[in-house]
Amino acid sequence: MTQRVYNFSAGPAVLPLPVLEQVAREMLALPGVGASILEISHRSGAFLPIIEDAEKNLRQLLSIPDDYAVLFLQGGGRLQFSMVPMNLLAPGQVADYILTGSWGNDALKEAKKAGQTRIAWDGKAAHYDRLPSREDLDLEPQAAYVHFTSNETIQGVQFAAEPEVGDVPLVCDASSDFLSRPLPIRKYGLLYACAQKNAGPAGVTVVIIRKDLLKRSDPKLPGYLNYDVHAQNNSMWNTPPTFSVYVLKLITEWLLGDVGGLEAMHARNKEKARLLYDEIQRSGGFYAGHAQPNCRSLMNVTFRLPSDELTAQFVSEAKQRGLTELKGHRSVGGIRASIYNAMPTAGVEALRDFMEEFRRKNQE
Amino acid sequence: MTQRVYNFSAGPAVLPLPVLEQVAREMLALPGVGASILEISHRSGAFLPIIEDAEKNLRQLLSIPDDYAVLFLQGGGRLQFSMVPMNLLAPGQVADYILTGSWGNDALKEAKKAGQTRIAWDGKAAHYDRLPSREDLDLEPQAAYVHFTSNETIQGVQFAAEPEVGDVPLVCDASSDFLSRPLPIRKYGLLYACAQKNAGPAGVTVVIIRKDLLKRSDPKLPGYLNYDVHAQNNSMWNTPPTFSVYVLKLITEWLLGDVGGLEAMHARNKEKARLLYDEIQRSGGFYAGHAQPNCRSLMNVTFRLPSDELTAQFVSEAKQRGLTELKGHRSVGGIRASIYNAMPTAGVEALRDFMEEFRRKNQE
Repeated sequence: MTQRVYNFSAGPAVLPLPVLEQVAREMLALPGVGASILEISHRSGAFLPIIEDAEKNLRQLLSIPDDYAVLFLQGGGRLQFSMVPMNLLAPGQVADYILTGSWGNDALKEAKKAGQTRIAWDGKAAHYDRLPSREDLDLEPQAAYVHFTSNETIQGVQFAAEPEVGDVPLVCDASSDFLSRPLPIRKYGLLYACAQKNAGPAGVTVVIIRKDLLKRSDPKLPGYLNYDVHAQNNSMWNTPPTFSVYVLKLITEWLLGDVGGLEAMHARNKEKARLLYDEIQRSGGFYAGHAQPNCRSLMNVTFRLPSDELTAQFVSEAKQRGLTELKGHRSVGGIRASIYNAMPTAGVEALRDFMEEFRRKNQE
Repeated sequence: MTQRVYNFSAGPAVLPLPVLEQVAREMLALPGVGASILEISHRSGAFLPIIEDAEKNLRQLLSIPDDYAVLFLQGGGRLQFSMVPMNLLAPGQVADYILTGSWGNDALKEAKKAGQTRIAWDGKAAHYDRLPSREDLDLEPQAAYVHFTSNETIQGVQFAAEPEVGDVPLVCDASSDFLSRPLPIRKYGLLYACAQKNAGPAGVTVVIIRKDLLKRSDPKLPGYLNYDVHAQNNSMWNTPPTFSVYVLKLITEWLLGDVGGLEAMHARNKEKARLLYDEIQRSGGFYAGHAQPNCRSLMNVTFRLPSDELTAQFVSEAKQRGLTELKGHRSVGGIRASIYNAMPTAGVEALRDFMEEFRRKNQE
């Protein structure tokens, strides 16, 4: 039996063990095919059902209506930072950006190259520890779209519900909480997510787009950057990242089967996050959460210790217990525990127990 | 023991069995890491040596000089069709395209969106069954670059040596013969290859670019489309396709170790191709090769049978023998046997034997 750690990496991140076991089992040859998933043509009779099932399962998990297209692309969230404005923001229009952390800022940076933008809200002054209320948002009613980041992995703040933006299409970078909970897809114009948090390995990005928005894509766009081209070709305009789509399909099967759907997944995720936030609460300031309590992420739990020395000691002692990748992002410091879908409750409990013990030994 | 077929797919395509076995063995946890390659951060101490070794091995296999950068990108050859002109072709300049098949035409289509282009040669009139001689090329001496496709997978024509283009930077789509033979990298300004033929699974594209050309990248380009951004960040500007890079690394190890380098690989590939072309030659016209003999591809052997009925029968009977994916591309028809690096000689011999037998039974 292979020894596995509890891996709290922010992404690429822990995946469900039964999925990894199936991937290993089928690596030399898919059942009935005689060739590996790495070797089969994307247009073969062996691969088409895989990508079709991946889409069908996503539609089932998220109740995606028929007037939304589901695309499997490459280039990660960062290519979406450019594709969104290049497709949706026409000359003379403006796009609104809600900035709740590092990723929203990076998205805005790329959008500025493509067209005119506005900042509808910026949490910078409070070091991105909170989210805007409805009254905080300064929205342009004629905007081409409003962009927000549902979960900021670095700061650990997460929208519990979509910002209210009226009739303007809502565009969401859902990279780090996609498939962690049900979503009211009808509230979105476009939602994108790189897979390497809850949905699979790095290398595939899911885009869910309301079909009427596809009309905005200018035929003069570079082919790979044109949503309409991908939609018309069922994500087969070029060779899709076949292996990543296959693993994503297995993960959607795990969510539908073992887990029992996104309501159940969400409940599990809330319970796991509560274990850690309760310990932070109990710690009397030894562990200081970065996010305001009502904006806390269920995916990335961020907190600080009293000193850099204690932080380093925490990371190092945790690693000795098989609790890895707990160091916070360099821009925020402290500790970040990423507890995506596939992190078992037992792993979170082990971390919570370690936090208690470490605090007792080191609190003055 | 898992039953495997001989898979003649044009891509994604057959991979070396020892590589697949190692991937399967390590899928639950990389040795010493305790987590799967699918789960580890691209910035982790476990992944950095993998991407560094992938680059180091490529540099060794192809003798890539230090003044060339090696990038690992996403989006396949088709995104390169756009990135090449967007980075290298400034307003007021022109780019030359040599068209020897379907892929070169698709590359030109995207380049036209980005800037001014010329056709230096077009093999269309002869149905792309041949390559230009030096005299055939109508080159613009002031061109920003000259683009060619070293191997056209659909038509099965392959340059045995680089076209002579003087001091103009030579840009090559080497997607389907990359790592099949040694290359004089100094003759190239830029060379790109999606991995899913000889270099790995779909999802990673290798770009080798002479560093002085990076200065042409306009900072206003979309970030993901800027070669200079990727070079400055060692392909870590966004999360690279970690699994595909890992498999590519294993394949470079196989080439350096088991195979013994690209000279040895090239010799093996020539011998494999000879087995099939000799049978075509012997067949007295029953098998009619698409490519002119002096332009034949060592990677994709394309030929026709006397009728569509016989073609369908050939594909179907071959499949019963475990020889799969032999149907030619819809735009050319007939048969295409793709015999990339990882196709064992035994697989080609099995196909050759089947061709002989099929001919004896069906030749009038």
